[in-house]
Amino acid sequence: MSHLNETHDPALQSWVASANVADNGFPIQNLPFGVFRPAGANDGFRPGVAIGDSVLDLAALARLQPWSGKAATALDACQSDTLNGLMALDPAHWSALRLELSRALRAGSAQQTRLEPLLHKLSGVELTLPARIGDYTDFYISVHHATAVGKQFRPDNPLLPNYKWVPIGYHGRASSIGVSGQKFPRPVGQTRPSTEGGQPNFGPCQRLDYELELGIFVGRGNAQGDRITIGQAESHVFGLCILNDWSARDLQAWEYQPLGPFLAKNFASTISPWVVTLEALAPFRVPFQRDAADPQPLPYLSSPENQASGAFDIQLQVLLSTEQSRAQGAAPAPLSSSNFKDAYWNVAQLITHHTVNGCNLQPGDLLGTGTLSGPGKGQEGSLLEINGGGKHPVRLPWGEERNFLEDHDEVILRAACRKDGYPTISLGESAGMVLPAKA
Amino acid sequence: MSHLNETHDPALQSWVASANVADNGFPIQNLPFGVFRPAGANDGFRPGVAIGDSVLDLAALARLQPWSGKAATALDACQSDTLNGLMALDPAHWSALRLELSRALRAGSAQQTRLEPLLHKLSGVELTLPARIGDYTDFYISVHHATAVGKQFRPDNPLLPNYKWVPIGYHGRASSIGVSGQKFPRPVGQTRPSTEGGQPNFGPCQRLDYELELGIFVGRGNAQGDRITIGQAESHVFGLCILNDWSARDLQAWEYQPLGPFLAKNFASTISPWVVTLEALAPFRVPFQRDAADPQPLPYLSSPENQASGAFDIQLQVLLSTEQSRAQGAAPAPLSSSNFKDAYWNVAQLITHHTVNGCNLQPGDLLGTGTLSGPGKGQEGSLLEINGGGKHPVRLPWGEERNFLEDHDEVILRAACRKDGYPTISLGESAGMVLPAKA
Repeated sequence: MSHLNETHDPALQSWVASANVADNGFPIQNLPFGVFRPAGANDGFRPGVAIGDSVLDLAALARLQPWSGKAATALDACQSDTLNGLMALDPAHWSALRLELSRALRAGSAQQTRLEPLLHKLSGVELTLPARIGDYTDFYISVHHATAVGKQFRPDNPLLPNYKWVPIGYHGRASSIGVSGQKFPRPVGQTRPSTEGGQPNFGPCQRLDYELELGIFVGRGNAQGDRITIGQAESHVFGLCILNDWSARDLQAWEYQPLGPFLAKNFASTISPWVVTLEALAPFRVPFQRDAADPQPLPYLSSPENQASGAFDIQLQVLLSTEQSRAQGAAPAPLSSSNFKDAYWNVAQLITHHTVNGCNLQPGDLLGTGTLSGPGKGQEGSLLEINGGGKHPVRLPWGEERNFLEDHDEVILRAACRKDGYPTISLGESAGMVLPAKA
Repeated sequence: MSHLNETHDPALQSWVASANVADNGFPIQNLPFGVFRPAGANDGFRPGVAIGDSVLDLAALARLQPWSGKAATALDACQSDTLNGLMALDPAHWSALRLELSRALRAGSAQQTRLEPLLHKLSGVELTLPARIGDYTDFYISVHHATAVGKQFRPDNPLLPNYKWVPIGYHGRASSIGVSGQKFPRPVGQTRPSTEGGQPNFGPCQRLDYELELGIFVGRGNAQGDRITIGQAESHVFGLCILNDWSARDLQAWEYQPLGPFLAKNFASTISPWVVTLEALAPFRVPFQRDAADPQPLPYLSSPENQASGAFDIQLQVLLSTEQSRAQGAAPAPLSSSNFKDAYWNVAQLITHHTVNGCNLQPGDLLGTGTLSGPGKGQEGSLLEINGGGKHPVRLPWGEERNFLEDHDEVILRAACRKDGYPTISLGESAGMVLPAKA
């Protein structure tokens, strides 16, 4: 998985001209998978692969039976309204499909005339969840986020004793996950009593926040009772997307003891519609770093290969637009930016830890990384961190201030891999909007 | 839903003779739903309704098109390998189907000759999950359990301040839920370091426990953003089953701060294969009780009807068999018994609380009640409570002792409704066995 091949050649160009425009994000070296249908049509959803400003209909391509072997098996699995069937295969199949797609979309390919009718402009399609998500697990892998949040509760001892040993995670809600464009009413619920021992308050959330995360789509599953070793873990990962794990901080503060967040999280979660495969991310692998003062992972969470290249250099960014900014025609304001490589645990470690007790993962399951904050100022993955617990509102360029999100605010998360001499590999974006609470 | 009708007449008898045997549990007044197939056959799974020692094949019955109207629509939804389609309908449909089934299975019914070929002996069928469970949520509604467990951590202040206001819940793992007969290897994982600040221990769980719970199968769902009011809540409930939420106490103690239980719970959960509808349970409704010293529920969790009849009198029992007891031919040992009516929150309140923030429930979702311990000795819903945190092992009749579960132990949970002058309404049983940890 970590090896480069002809699909990663930075010189490759596509006959889809928009894919060759610098920094377009969906060059022929990317080839992310999603599920779409022509907007306004009554047609069913079907898998596609993004290329430049377009998406190639994989279900229609499968009906043409263009290829043989593993690529054909993988393509056949795309005759569906989800990617679960493709995800259930293995890296050899995913890789064979990627290679054929790369060759077919390459400038000069003899397959151009056959594929052109199967392209749809992205501006004219509706995107939906890439997979039927059976279970959603959220982790907590940024030590910078855990420390910043912990400081608000325990200034002298922000990190709990388990943090540096256990990839802390918990189960989330699958039913309320939507794709970019999701809008949801402000959640309502109980919050702390105003006086100790009094009756709790009840009403719309007053401390609504976003969380900047990545999502990991599980590929092949494991049988219940079987573990996935660290060496095998990445072969069970189909790819990554962006995830906004919206959080109602005031609901959470009142409800979360002793069993963890519940209504504070499960009203909505917004992912980007495109899943970028680990193979597409291979050029952006980096060594897995630990501070010298930190313990080495326990043996089940460690391998030389994981140490050498288990992390990914993915740049993350949060932007905010408001009703006022949109009325003024102002561009969304960047709030912060961070990088996935600064996380305390990596993708393979999450898969291995999740299954060490025999828990079975299934194709299409989603793992969230948890809020990906960086070590410095300007790298906070949530408003709670930017505002220091509600004390220092952020000033927006058009004159407004925000401690927490207000109605009609839109949060836009972006993620992309960039380096000199290689086309930008974008994970697209997750945009979501808060609507007023329902009466 | 709370009204009795002709299907509840205690004098009703079935032409399936075994259904009329006293205390058989599946009399014609019960009619629980499940999913089965003839054992050893390559046939597909299909819905069925249990009657005495048999199950009636509802998919085959649907093909005969015996009825019209809502009963026919409900029966048509049983042409599937899950009950999700039936669950997605509403109480009027479920009730119409129940009425037709009651009439058709009644002694003297003209439909006997048509239905007899569609009966299979329970001893000759394989049962599977009644529904495709999209999301699984576990609650914590026994104040007696919460107090007993809290005392082990905080002797002077066992209940947290939110407990008496918030139906505490968290998300569980859907993929690892199985039906009675489930066997799973002992989970492996990290536990607390032996010395403070040291390296965690790693290995097979040493404090494996069961949790005696009921499961609530969601019927109709709600759209994301919409709340289900307390008055509407029960119309979204299809029925109840038994649930064993196996727990690895030592894994839990190390991992659960700050986001709740994760690997301590998600390796396996075992439900009974039969779902007993709320309509079948109607004769066992009881008033919802609160101690005078306890606060009344917030308005969104309260209604006169819920106060009057929102709880259910369901008797629960835990039994244990071991490798040694089975070798000796000894009967499983009863460990404890309790009653669902002693819970601090009730079914409708859980549905309403779960959706108050706009979280969407879907047909086939499962809600666990949390461990249903009673107020007295002998009513503990887990070994952790019986043994006082591992200090007082339970003595078994055949001479063994148990603090926590050992390999090859089988835990059997049973639940049934009993009262004078009415046939026993059984929820069946959940039996599950611990296998040795995998290397």
